[in-house]
Amino acid sequence: MTFLDRLSKTSHKNNSLLCVGLDPDLEKLPKSLKNVADPIYEFNRQIIDATHDLVCSYKPNIAFYESSKSLESLQKTVKYIHESYPDTPVICDAKRGDIASTSMHYAQTLFDQFDFDAATVNPYLGFDSIEPFLNYKDKGTIILCRTSNSGAADFQDLLVNNEPIFVKVARSITQWDKQYGNCLMVVGATWPDQLRQVRQIAPHMDFLVPGVGSQGGDLEATVKAGVRTDKAGLIINASRSIIYAGTNEDFASKAREEAQKLRDQINNVRSSL
Amino acid sequence: MTFLDRLSKTSHKNNSLLCVGLDPDLEKLPKSLKNVADPIYEFNRQIIDATHDLVCSYKPNIAFYESSKSLESLQKTVKYIHESYPDTPVICDAKRGDIASTSMHYAQTLFDQFDFDAATVNPYLGFDSIEPFLNYKDKGTIILCRTSNSGAADFQDLLVNNEPIFVKVARSITQWDKQYGNCLMVVGATWPDQLRQVRQIAPHMDFLVPGVGSQGGDLEATVKAGVRTDKAGLIINASRSIIYAGTNEDFASKAREEAQKLRDQINNVRSSL
Repeated sequence: MTFLDRLSKTSHKNNSLLCVGLDPDLEKLPKSLKNVADPIYEFNRQIIDATHDLVCSYKPNIAFYESSKSLESLQKTVKYIHESYPDTPVICDAKRGDIASTSMHYAQTLFDQFDFDAATVNPYLGFDSIEPFLNYKDKGTIILCRTSNSGAADFQDLLVNNEPIFVKVARSITQWDKQYGNCLMVVGATWPDQLRQVRQIAPHMDFLVPGVGSQGGDLEATVKAGVRTDKAGLIINASRSIIYAGTNEDFASKAREEAQKLRDQINNVRSSL
Repeated sequence: MTFLDRLSKTSHKNNSLLCVGLDPDLEKLPKSLKNVADPIYEFNRQIIDATHDLVCSYKPNIAFYESSKSLESLQKTVKYIHESYPDTPVICDAKRGDIASTSMHYAQTLFDQFDFDAATVNPYLGFDSIEPFLNYKDKGTIILCRTSNSGAADFQDLLVNNEPIFVKVARSITQWDKQYGNCLMVVGATWPDQLRQVRQIAPHMDFLVPGVGSQGGDLEATVKAGVRTDKAGLIINASRSIIYAGTNEDFASKAREEAQKLRDQINNVRSSL
């Protein structure tokens, strides 16, 4: 089953566009996990068990596992999701990109070694830096288009023939998707107008949308600006607002409450359309 | 000692602008290393011992160590260089970039955990994605400007007010450098005209220049287009053409021959100016 098939299946089954970002920070883990053998894996496992029927996907950001020297915990987490909830896709947020012969190594690491179903990549180096990812036909390649941070404006919004660069990137991604069929793009929730603009360019594609929750994106505006005519096509990610909703032993049930609330809020907006 | 101090000191001492890229590929290692305990580390160590007096720096690309599950070999390599040749800076080619709170984790990993002296980063997400690196004042932050691959043209060459985006990026980098003093940029050797253009914008900065050797950049044109008025300011990287110059037990001495040839070719062009 391809990444997009898994995504669609899980999204329908759980009636959810919500993606939970698994970005564990050793300093923020509940005290109750301090003495277990692999606190990061255990934290993730409990969050996953508590939210698996509420999400369309999970998205660990590999930066957190690198800085805490817990890449093995990450690998165990991916394996746990695949074994316990086999239809649920796991996206690696890695924002990789290098010349083709090097990008191939990144793709091998994320897809062959870690068995992620999709990965985020950075478009600055152009098509040949992304192609090694696209060549994994069953995997999803999620290309940064317009990101959710304030600095995104520095270069992504510069105008080329009266169109911002992120629009040029979006147009290129739609072309690559025609050839490969496994592209998605990242469009932040912090700027709904830009999300609407990219949706017009790519009416049928799936977007990964970070920036709701801790980053402050307006959920209603995001959903309205971003959904396709079938009221789907978004992977709305929240990380910190869900995984740190509780700070004590009740962290998993608090995460579930927060995930349920966010999934339902998203669905309420979809229903209103 | 800051990264730029180390770079300047080693470059003067060895009369060299050459950087050796330590990108070991398990499949390409000499057979003589197959049965040693840590072949990648041993390969690097022998290359380093054979070339340390010919280089201004070393540059491992982390993608190679990730795909071969040899991040520990990488860590040992950095430690070996720092202990054996303490003035010689080690650059991590990682091309990282994410929202600020995540980029901080990447910076921690590369600077605190691995103890690299500098790292490459991708500018697509803008200033706030790079600032966590810049905050390490003693380290170098080497920002992609114009890369050496063919796909670089896809977005980096798009014109904004009649200037390509990479020129806009170069101007921003010079501004950031005024504030932080620890910026460098990546400008590929494959397009000397663009290297000349960026040198005009940043007459005093240091550039990391990939693309000579296996990627086919013209060395003479690169040096002429890229050096500052003091005939320095370039970190000219070659990886495959040096580390795989020999394929047998003589790989280290072949690497030395190739490194010496390239250093001297660079210096011949510098002398002719």
